[in-house]
Amino acid sequence: MKITGKQIIGYSNADGATDNFKSSIAMKDNSGQYMFSEATAANIDEAAKKADAAFRTYKLLPVADRVNFLEAIAAEINNIRETLVPVAMQETHLPQPRLNGEIDRTIGQINLFANLLKEGSWVNAIIDKAMPERQPLPKPQICQMQRPLGPVAVFGASNFPFAFSVAGGDTISALAAGCPVVYKAHFGHPVTSELVGNCIIEAAKKTGMPDGVFSLIQGKTIESGQALVKHPLIKALGFTGSLRGGRALFDLAAQRPEPIPVYAEMGSVNPVFLLPGKLNEDPESLAKSLVASNTLGVGQFCTNPGIILMVKSESADKFLTQYAESLSGANGGLMLTDAIYGAYCKSITELESFPSLKLLGKGIADANQATPQAFTVSGTDFLKDQSLFEEHFGPMALLVIADNVLQLLTIAGNIPGQLTTSVWANANDVSAHKELFDILEEKVGRVMINNVPTGVEVTHAMQHGGPYPATTDSRTTSVGSQAIYRFVRPVSYQNFPQELLPPELQNGNPLNIWRKVDGQLTKEVLA
Amino acid sequence: MKITGKQIIGYSNADGATDNFKSSIAMKDNSGQYMFSEATAANIDEAAKKADAAFRTYKLLPVADRVNFLEAIAAEINNIRETLVPVAMQETHLPQPRLNGEIDRTIGQINLFANLLKEGSWVNAIIDKAMPERQPLPKPQICQMQRPLGPVAVFGASNFPFAFSVAGGDTISALAAGCPVVYKAHFGHPVTSELVGNCIIEAAKKTGMPDGVFSLIQGKTIESGQALVKHPLIKALGFTGSLRGGRALFDLAAQRPEPIPVYAEMGSVNPVFLLPGKLNEDPESLAKSLVASNTLGVGQFCTNPGIILMVKSESADKFLTQYAESLSGANGGLMLTDAIYGAYCKSITELESFPSLKLLGKGIADANQATPQAFTVSGTDFLKDQSLFEEHFGPMALLVIADNVLQLLTIAGNIPGQLTTSVWANANDVSAHKELFDILEEKVGRVMINNVPTGVEVTHAMQHGGPYPATTDSRTTSVGSQAIYRFVRPVSYQNFPQELLPPELQNGNPLNIWRKVDGQLTKEVLA
Repeated sequence: MKITGKQIIGYSNADGATDNFKSSIAMKDNSGQYMFSEATAANIDEAAKKADAAFRTYKLLPVADRVNFLEAIAAEINNIRETLVPVAMQETHLPQPRLNGEIDRTIGQINLFANLLKEGSWVNAIIDKAMPERQPLPKPQICQMQRPLGPVAVFGASNFPFAFSVAGGDTISALAAGCPVVYKAHFGHPVTSELVGNCIIEAAKKTGMPDGVFSLIQGKTIESGQALVKHPLIKALGFTGSLRGGRALFDLAAQRPEPIPVYAEMGSVNPVFLLPGKLNEDPESLAKSLVASNTLGVGQFCTNPGIILMVKSESADKFLTQYAESLSGANGGLMLTDAIYGAYCKSITELESFPSLKLLGKGIADANQATPQAFTVSGTDFLKDQSLFEEHFGPMALLVIADNVLQLLTIAGNIPGQLTTSVWANANDVSAHKELFDILEEKVGRVMINNVPTGVEVTHAMQHGGPYPATTDSRTTSVGSQAIYRFVRPVSYQNFPQELLPPELQNGNPLNIWRKVDGQLTKEVLA
Repeated sequence: MKITGKQIIGYSNADGATDNFKSSIAMKDNSGQYMFSEATAANIDEAAKKADAAFRTYKLLPVADRVNFLEAIAAEINNIRETLVPVAMQETHLPQPRLNGEIDRTIGQINLFANLLKEGSWVNAIIDKAMPERQPLPKPQICQMQRPLGPVAVFGASNFPFAFSVAGGDTISALAAGCPVVYKAHFGHPVTSELVGNCIIEAAKKTGMPDGVFSLIQGKTIESGQALVKHPLIKALGFTGSLRGGRALFDLAAQRPEPIPVYAEMGSVNPVFLLPGKLNEDPESLAKSLVASNTLGVGQFCTNPGIILMVKSESADKFLTQYAESLSGANGGLMLTDAIYGAYCKSITELESFPSLKLLGKGIADANQATPQAFTVSGTDFLKDQSLFEEHFGPMALLVIADNVLQLLTIAGNIPGQLTTSVWANANDVSAHKELFDILEEKVGRVMINNVPTGVEVTHAMQHGGPYPATTDSRTTSVGSQAIYRFVRPVSYQNFPQELLPPELQNGNPLNIWRKVDGQLTKEVLA
């Protein structure tokens, strides 16, 4: 394993600042840990300029070439899987099976986008035919398709070192859309990042992509990230992380002379509603499922169920008893970074100081490990303090005991934007409380019934994104094929000769894609 | 004609502040001009609250009810067409045939959205079927469709008192999407606005829409607009106007505790490139066409061709001679408002002070009318000053004489974001200068060949929107059916029972719409 600790600027490596930061991985010769140089403003400028220079060539490549590039990235990652997993284990403290599965997911995600490109209809080709005889004026032919925005900056997440990192959803959807990417690695896993970054570079070289289609910068300070967001050649931004970090980047991007779209996925407590009928059916197994979901991966999923709501009842009591018992047997673990562990401990201390909160129980943890915990609070007290909706990243749950279903509805109406919400309901609950679903869909990106929120399918219908503060742009997703729409915009071509149109819009429909012609979806060849 | 001068807050009228402002229309009894009260913060709060209260009812209505509402709006406007046109003529100084045509266009626009709703596929229904046997975990059914964002604020434009105003594209696309609208009337045509606002209210009452689905506030100060943008219940903003105004509202919206999307359509100079081969074919008729396009409607179209570029040549000389001659016979006219006329005069004075600019010619205008004007500048001088790309709203054109096509390409690469660009090219020009088109599509929303930019078709493939500073969100359009996507976001429903799903997502496909099922477009009924 050869690690340079440098910036990857297109097909070159570059030294960063003399300010270095340590990875958590020791070098083979035991001469210390791998060191990484912090990206300088000059590094970032070079990466952005190379991305811009690569953009026109890259966007004009036949779609088959972009497919080859994506598939080559997947192959390169798969080839070094046995190097990647142990490195990521050391850098993130996530277990081997999870990381192996995450590589599978990352490869699956790349293939999803490769297949989307092969099928081709995603460009939303629209053709309105000319009407030369129209009175009082002839109508020209107008056609439209989605075109790439330009160079994109992506900030990787700490909690998914593969699926939301270097070759994760944001990078791959941007590359699929035709946008070069300048990637800012998360300082929590710089070695993993360099290794995956090199996979993308190798894939780009092997498939003849232009130099600059991908760059990777390292850095632990916020300045390097800020310089990237402010760079005038960057045209959009993908980010996964904290509300504070995401909002800061959003503000910076909005203040640019030319504002750019920011797709920041941030905090979420993913409220879970347990309706009375369903809760009464089997409170114990429900409690077990939710403890498992809440403590999975040391609670470090963005869809972690952080707030669980129910109505005071005998079955709620049974649920709580079982929840406490299951929790007492649940393992905590080392969190992703020391900073994240520190924040978790701090938030637990804060919650302990709330007079209205009562500790329900704790799980098992060694020193330096996050301890799973749960608190209870009455619906009335919960409604008094909107700050209880804040996310506490880690294996923590707040169990809210409402007086009645009406109070649950009031709480539902107060929920700030969330990635997901889950409702546990039987057929009677559904018909008695339809209003709850009408409220909840206004608050979230994804509503589930009788499913735990952890486990985000990478598929076409997935919406992983919700109203602020869950994200800064609820109109898009960061998981699933629809993520490609983050990095494109429609362009209309009016009265163009056939040979000048992209193949997607030519009368002959050479790519055999679905198109909307005069308002009707069709694959037909036009005369 | 009964004009109250009040705020229309849902189904009630409300007095605004005692600060009044005058319309330009005299009352029948000659007791003075119609007076309008400025909306207060309380008026705006009430309108936003009513919109929010109406939202859930409105979004859940069967789509056929929304269609009825839209069609009723069109009918109400058509019914009072003979009142509307003379009023709008007085308020905007636009001529009768233009305003009559604009009403037709507005009605056509409403019908476009009504038909889009009837056809139904616009919701982008996506269904990924369950795979209960999948290993290691079963896959739940997940489906997705576009859902409305919530109450929308719309700021009307001065230059289209119907098509971009009260019942214009922004209002109608928001209503079509399922969003209530709080409309801020342009102070340039308050009487027209009240009349059209009442048409929407009448239509809403007749078709049983909830109180609050539409409100209209009047105001001349910037405070009322700011209060509307800052209101926490407003979830998106549509605006058509100046760069300064649009950017101010964008900044305000980005600074909200919960930022919201802003769709501001702002300045554009819509550069026109005359390639040598085409220019040589018939420079005189090209000059005539462009003078006509530039002076149409006193140059007050957002797609007005404000910059015309060509290469120094004999045919360019012929073009310029004819341009000056045609311009000398072109009529100016009264502009929309005194403020707009003042700004036009100021910008002409500024341009006259540029040493590199030479006056090519002027048109005909009475006192207080805007005079059509054209200046020439060399490509080299033009490249020295990026401020020459700024819009001067009115019948003004800057004619840029480049040394060669290479210089044209350099200028194309420097263009800030535009709504449109037009290229005049014959077959030889197209094949010789393909690169120009690859550059231009990165800069604009719509590229045309051999068409003047004025004349924006209201159709499916129209993209009326481009990179900043043309708009604040290049990913959407303000004209054409795709405008509906401004006011929606995707919501996923996971593991839902059939009866709880919206009809668009039910297996039976009761609305018979196109849906993407497991990645394939189909209208099929699912088992």
